[in-house]
Amino acid sequence: MLTLDKVFHAQTILKDMIRETALVQAHGIAPECELFLKPENLQFTGSFKLRGAAYKIAMLSEEEKQHGVIACSAGNHAQGVALAATKNGISSLICLPDTAPISKVEATKGFGAEVCLVEGCYDDAYRKALELKESKGYTFVHPFDDENVIAGQGTVALEILNEMDHLDAIVVPIGGGGLISGIAYTVKQIRPSVKVYGVQVCGAPSMYQSIQNGEINCLSSVATIADGIAVKQPGENTFALVREYVDEIVLVSDDEVASAILALIEKQKMIAEGAGAAAVAAVMSGKLDLKGKRVVAVVSGGNIDVTSLSRVIDRGLRNSGRASSLLIELIDKPGQLKDISRIIADCGGNVTGVHYEKGNTESVNGCFLRIDMETRDYAHVELITQSLRNENFKLI
Amino acid sequence: MLTLDKVFHAQTILKDMIRETALVQAHGIAPECELFLKPENLQFTGSFKLRGAAYKIAMLSEEEKQHGVIACSAGNHAQGVALAATKNGISSLICLPDTAPISKVEATKGFGAEVCLVEGCYDDAYRKALELKESKGYTFVHPFDDENVIAGQGTVALEILNEMDHLDAIVVPIGGGGLISGIAYTVKQIRPSVKVYGVQVCGAPSMYQSIQNGEINCLSSVATIADGIAVKQPGENTFALVREYVDEIVLVSDDEVASAILALIEKQKMIAEGAGAAAVAAVMSGKLDLKGKRVVAVVSGGNIDVTSLSRVIDRGLRNSGRASSLLIELIDKPGQLKDISRIIADCGGNVTGVHYEKGNTESVNGCFLRIDMETRDYAHVELITQSLRNENFKLI
Repeated sequence: MLTLDKVFHAQTILKDMIRETALVQAHGIAPECELFLKPENLQFTGSFKLRGAAYKIAMLSEEEKQHGVIACSAGNHAQGVALAATKNGISSLICLPDTAPISKVEATKGFGAEVCLVEGCYDDAYRKALELKESKGYTFVHPFDDENVIAGQGTVALEILNEMDHLDAIVVPIGGGGLISGIAYTVKQIRPSVKVYGVQVCGAPSMYQSIQNGEINCLSSVATIADGIAVKQPGENTFALVREYVDEIVLVSDDEVASAILALIEKQKMIAEGAGAAAVAAVMSGKLDLKGKRVVAVVSGGNIDVTSLSRVIDRGLRNSGRASSLLIELIDKPGQLKDISRIIADCGGNVTGVHYEKGNTESVNGCFLRIDMETRDYAHVELITQSLRNENFKLI
Repeated sequence: MLTLDKVFHAQTILKDMIRETALVQAHGIAPECELFLKPENLQFTGSFKLRGAAYKIAMLSEEEKQHGVIACSAGNHAQGVALAATKNGISSLICLPDTAPISKVEATKGFGAEVCLVEGCYDDAYRKALELKESKGYTFVHPFDDENVIAGQGTVALEILNEMDHLDAIVVPIGGGGLISGIAYTVKQIRPSVKVYGVQVCGAPSMYQSIQNGEINCLSSVATIADGIAVKQPGENTFALVREYVDEIVLVSDDEVASAILALIEKQKMIAEGAGAAAVAAVMSGKLDLKGKRVVAVVSGGNIDVTSLSRVIDRGLRNSGRASSLLIELIDKPGQLKDISRIIADCGGNVTGVHYEKGNTESVNGCFLRIDMETRDYAHVELITQSLRNENFKLI
């Protein structure tokens, strides 16, 4: 049974194993409320997962510790378990699908784990981990559906409540539900007036649907840039805790997540992964009633693949009207680029790319011109397209 | 005259205007030393520049304040002066070249300044600012060569020394020299055993050359991704202070800066601009004698254009062997891509891009194939290229 004592106990045990991340006030991200960030992306291993894993492992019996632990994950849980095991002085084996990004494999090894690459997908790696658990006697560390893991994540709430006397709401991303279970349970025991809101992405709404339907649902597939919360099915413990203690769950789109990542970079100079930015995306979206409220958004992790990061940045710029592309059908004759360039420059747009493409245009001599631009906002893009239309350019 | 009293006075005055940024321990960036970051990228306006500007402005006479201030900058100084003026309740006018990025113009306006876009380059904007100063009676706020500005920047050192009892060295980026002058002067008055090292980029070594030659040099041009420290000529005050108080200056390349930006993103989940990462680049490069030392690197700013950020990330990945491209000359016949894909996959490389290009190959039927890959490190790239050569592929 999860108890408040357990969460407080976890806090004591974790004292020397985790970083107590200090709240950061975030100006200019969501002007309607007073927003603070709980930056668990700055946690060791780059996510809150270390807390639950470290408490779980610390609570093992001596005999269990001697056998070591096993986990299956391609992400933050892998790194959390790896470092937690190392800090507790025991060995860990992490099963990863062989499709996992090289960077994640290297990071997991870097925290002291042995890595077992399993051919296939996550499910194959999961089966392999269970097999090894049976044959070798390792303790399996579940990523979320475990009371000690949940108690460990609950320490996030203790830190928030301790640091902030007055507070209206905490917004938390949901994957399997371990983090929000720990936070919601703790908050409602200590200061029940504080609302706890959950956030999932449209591409992986497993907890959202399960709560709506009143029973645990399993999604057939998930697809989102927030890979850290792309979970098909909530846990039994976490489902029960979320149902009892969470006030509301909202969904955000991948585009909203990308814009939140971008806002954190620009306004806070902070890197969040997709899952880590989901709570901020919910606050920015206006889907929660936070006007005039004092709000903490949990930035749960920062382990975004740097190659994905470039794509997310690009997407975020486009979504906010600060990068845009025009496709113009041209008759291929001299001087057209000159005119178009002039119009864009007069409007204050900054051209960052020009591409000519032959294609299936109306005229045989036709071509398509794609212009990439830096712009101020949507209104600015509209001004430029209107000016081009006014001079008879055909925008597709 | 710069005095220690002035720096302490600045600290008092700035108390409510700036954020006292707390040192962050940086694991895994430079294993040979114990590295801490002074994260001035998390300062309001995203750079330390606010400190100097705010102290300068606070020290103006009532009459000067009534006339308002003027500055010329396309970067951090503009935003620093804008917010400093607003916080002091006075008006500011910032002259920017009309080539300045839209994002910088918007940010400067956002902090409450009036913006005057001047046709041409920085020098044109500078002339315009001096003209306006004369005709309208504004006070000109110099970006670095001013005692009160330098005293304001010196507060960075007070915070570091206050937070850290034992410390061997502070590493500081140098543009015009305002930040390092303030830091070096302050450190050498209070704890002279602490070394103060300066860092410039190879593309803008104005202070480095001036110190070497024993007199102020003016570079004919500067070119670097660290635009915040792309300064052609040191100031008279800053040159004298650096000569007296700075222990050593080293140069880093743009590639080293890009790798440092990437390291800060991956290891610290932190965004630094080029200038802001220069000190970290110097620590990583091994050019300074820091082995076993306790070191603070000042991350001076975080205002990097998000579009530049993608390019820097890409560059950093390439420099560390984690992204690479192969150019292979092929005879254009079926099955070649299949063989190449197999070899790369067997070696554990991850293909992220494939481009066929006709070109000036030896054979008429030839073509070039460019393969982009994610790799672990240089040795991994070497393994892949060798395996391809072993199967008779012609790598260019």
